[in-house]
Amino acid sequence: MRDVSIIGVGQTAVAEHWDRSIRDLAVEAIAAARQDAGVDRVDVLFVGNMLSGELAAQENLATLVADGAALLPVEALKIEAACASGGAALRAAYLAVGSGVHDYALVVGVEKMTDYLTDGVTSALALAADADYEAAHGISFAALNALLMRRYMHEHGARHEDFAPFSVNAHANAAFNPRAMYRQAITVDDFVRSPVVADPINILDSAGICDGAAALLVVPSSEARRARRAPVRIAASATATDTLGLAERKDPLVWQAVADSARLAYAQAKVKPRDIDLFELHDAFTIVSVLCLEACGFADRGSALKLAAEGRIGLGGDIPIGTLGGLKGRGHPVGASGVYQVVETVLQLRGEAGAAQVRGATIGMAQSVGGSGSVAVTHILQV
Amino acid sequence: MRDVSIIGVGQTAVAEHWDRSIRDLAVEAIAAARQDAGVDRVDVLFVGNMLSGELAAQENLATLVADGAALLPVEALKIEAACASGGAALRAAYLAVGSGVHDYALVVGVEKMTDYLTDGVTSALALAADADYEAAHGISFAALNALLMRRYMHEHGARHEDFAPFSVNAHANAAFNPRAMYRQAITVDDFVRSPVVADPINILDSAGICDGAAALLVVPSSEARRARRAPVRIAASATATDTLGLAERKDPLVWQAVADSARLAYAQAKVKPRDIDLFELHDAFTIVSVLCLEACGFADRGSALKLAAEGRIGLGGDIPIGTLGGLKGRGHPVGASGVYQVVETVLQLRGEAGAAQVRGATIGMAQSVGGSGSVAVTHILQV
Repeated sequence: MRDVSIIGVGQTAVAEHWDRSIRDLAVEAIAAARQDAGVDRVDVLFVGNMLSGELAAQENLATLVADGAALLPVEALKIEAACASGGAALRAAYLAVGSGVHDYALVVGVEKMTDYLTDGVTSALALAADADYEAAHGISFAALNALLMRRYMHEHGARHEDFAPFSVNAHANAAFNPRAMYRQAITVDDFVRSPVVADPINILDSAGICDGAAALLVVPSSEARRARRAPVRIAASATATDTLGLAERKDPLVWQAVADSARLAYAQAKVKPRDIDLFELHDAFTIVSVLCLEACGFADRGSALKLAAEGRIGLGGDIPIGTLGGLKGRGHPVGASGVYQVVETVLQLRGEAGAAQVRGATIGMAQSVGGSGSVAVTHILQV
Repeated sequence: MRDVSIIGVGQTAVAEHWDRSIRDLAVEAIAAARQDAGVDRVDVLFVGNMLSGELAAQENLATLVADGAALLPVEALKIEAACASGGAALRAAYLAVGSGVHDYALVVGVEKMTDYLTDGVTSALALAADADYEAAHGISFAALNALLMRRYMHEHGARHEDFAPFSVNAHANAAFNPRAMYRQAITVDDFVRSPVVADPINILDSAGICDGAAALLVVPSSEARRARRAPVRIAASATATDTLGLAERKDPLVWQAVADSARLAYAQAKVKPRDIDLFELHDAFTIVSVLCLEACGFADRGSALKLAAEGRIGLGGDIPIGTLGGLKGRGHPVGASGVYQVVETVLQLRGEAGAAQVRGATIGMAQSVGGSGSVAVTHILQV
């Protein structure tokens, strides 16, 4: 297995791109990543996407993107792992480059969610749940997370407003990110007064529905010196799975796939949680941030809310999360989010995160989660 | 890159499985492949599937299958490349094992197409075409292939009945396959009188809509001797892409992605077309068999019909195709077909193909095509 690095990153703004197709978005992000690397060569394309079939009437998506980006006849494959699709596409590229079969792998995560009505998106997102045992009963994804949040509040005696710091932090950081969807700061009061989506989850607990694409150029570390920018090494890459249905778990508040993929990643990178300078986690809902921080060893069970309350998740804290807005502030184009997380981690490690820069960051972790914690892909990056 | 072999194969019957879910089918095929190999260990799962979101209301499919097959917490990813998804899943496993990251990779191709009305399936299959420039105009997949067939007939002065031998051969071979959907022999007369689907394509030009799953256990060749059965080596694995839309091609009768992936595979395996003992090709329509035989160098341009007319595609011919029925006779559960093709190639190379056995076969080729020739995945297997 060869050592692998990222030498180029690109992204579109995250927004409601009413005037642009899924092809347009992917092509823009790819062009930006190739421009950033200053390298033309591409041997293979991995596309991370969850819902193009349902929301953009398009499967065979990897070929569409290869064609649109003038990459033909390169190998092109689409990877789907629900909301972890973007991270999974990088994982596939890491294997392809690590194997020695390909040298220049392009990864693009793309999702176009706004051409359909909200009803359509809610149903589409529920495809990440168990069709036979969860979705068939009409439960939405917000509702599944609401069950988790209510249970967490019950077990740990937490109030809904205790989750506010996660949303406040995401919006504060997004304000520094020109590509983010929600660049306005919010207060705890805004959070508390926000309309309920699925009790106790409200609008400001939830990442928004949107469009976007992000891209990476991945090469053997031995080739990385050819690039224009300093390479960022992939120190670890790991995927793990848990039951698809929440009801099958012994303890729904222990996200075992997240814990397993983090443990594998720490072992591969030979680091511990305290060595991580920033953590781009999967804050699709505030409760998800809490469960991921606990599963990954940044907080003991029941204590992630305290971590947030003490300001330790902010840019100057000991474990900054969602540093460029996270899924909540930047936006969550589902199949693209995992690649945005890695793009943002790369920008931080290069020292190019502008006003959101985490000072002296050398090790960053990006983690995508699919379903209600049923699949997790973790990458640790290092300079 | 390590050398890679297949040590176990499994498959469900291809049929209209009204009483079974996509999970049931995948789990059955996986259990059969593990039983066949006599090995319990699984390090990673790759699922090939095109339409579970649209037809089975399920994304996050790899996790569903890992959960259903009691493989948690293994890494599990779904690969989509339209009707080439099954071949693409093997390709991803080949990269994962070849890289040295994983040793025991399970591949399953699965599709459940019959729970929805035919209208739904026709629309779903059209997702493999270009949504903006083809499908938006209402063209179906059969209609796209009908354009190709009409053009071929025009350029080469062929009659529709000249395509009959492909369908007759597929049904004759399927009669020997207990897992095939259409086990009845047909005559040229049956073919000619078959109802038109999209002129000139008729029912007997077309692979049927159905359900099924097939699985493979893929390991480093150095580990293969632990298996119960003789290993089959993956001598080559290659993917290539072409324009998504037919109208963008200089010559729609030259399937360049198919030609490119075959050329790469021949070079990797160090073989020529004449060395191939059997060819499991992507006969979704009879015209597709013709274009693939020509693109892969088994016939010159315009001469594949002659190859079939001379009986050279039969089990005793010099290039047997669809030896256990092909997509036409065995059935075409789209995301699973590519894995069925490899399972059948393995059975042939092990000498376990029963009455359909190609005598003395040592090198077999399996090729999946997605879209109207827009992506092709070719594997060459060897004993």
